[in-house]
Amino acid sequence: MPLFMDIHKGMEGLTAQAVAEAHKKDLQKQGKYGVKYLKYWFNEKDGTVFCLSQAPNKEAALKVHDEAHGLHPDEIIEVKEGS
Amino acid sequence: MPLFMDIHKGMEGLTAQAVAEAHKKDLQKQGKYGVKYLKYWFNEKDGTVFCLSQAPNKEAALKVHDEAHGLHPDEIIEVKEGS
Repeated sequence: MPLFMDIHKGMEGLTAQAVAEAHKKDLQKQGKYGVKYLKYWFNEKDGTVFCLSQAPNKEAALKVHDEAHGLHPDEIIEVKEGS
Repeated sequence: MPLFMDIHKGMEGLTAQAVAEAHKKDLQKQGKYGVKYLKYWFNEKDGTVFCLSQAPNKEAALKVHDEAHGLHPDEIIEVKEGS
């Protein structure tokens, strides 16, 4: 199944706890769309979040974010993982 | 040690093999600067590459890229990994 990296930029007041809660909501919604949110990385100072997911397509990955917490990423890019 | 995500955009003629070779060169140079390139993800169509590294600081991570293959990323962001 394809992999996607999405990027959220400049999220104001971002905290580790807030991202963890948003991620938890993704995990709760993802099954409905056949998506698996795998990992995320974040920077609290500049409000950046990267999310790596496995999804049937870009739209499904975005749908999970939209329904889970409404935090739409600035970009989402289909990727392959290097070995 | 801090983690960094860097992003290379719009690399023309990007192939899986070319990224793999560049990554291999990073691995050869990284010890000199106390850096560990952990993973990378790429998109051949739009020429995007994400590299995740563990490094003492941003400059050390960039130094490895510069010396290994000269492919300077468009952005590099210090990140924490979500659990």
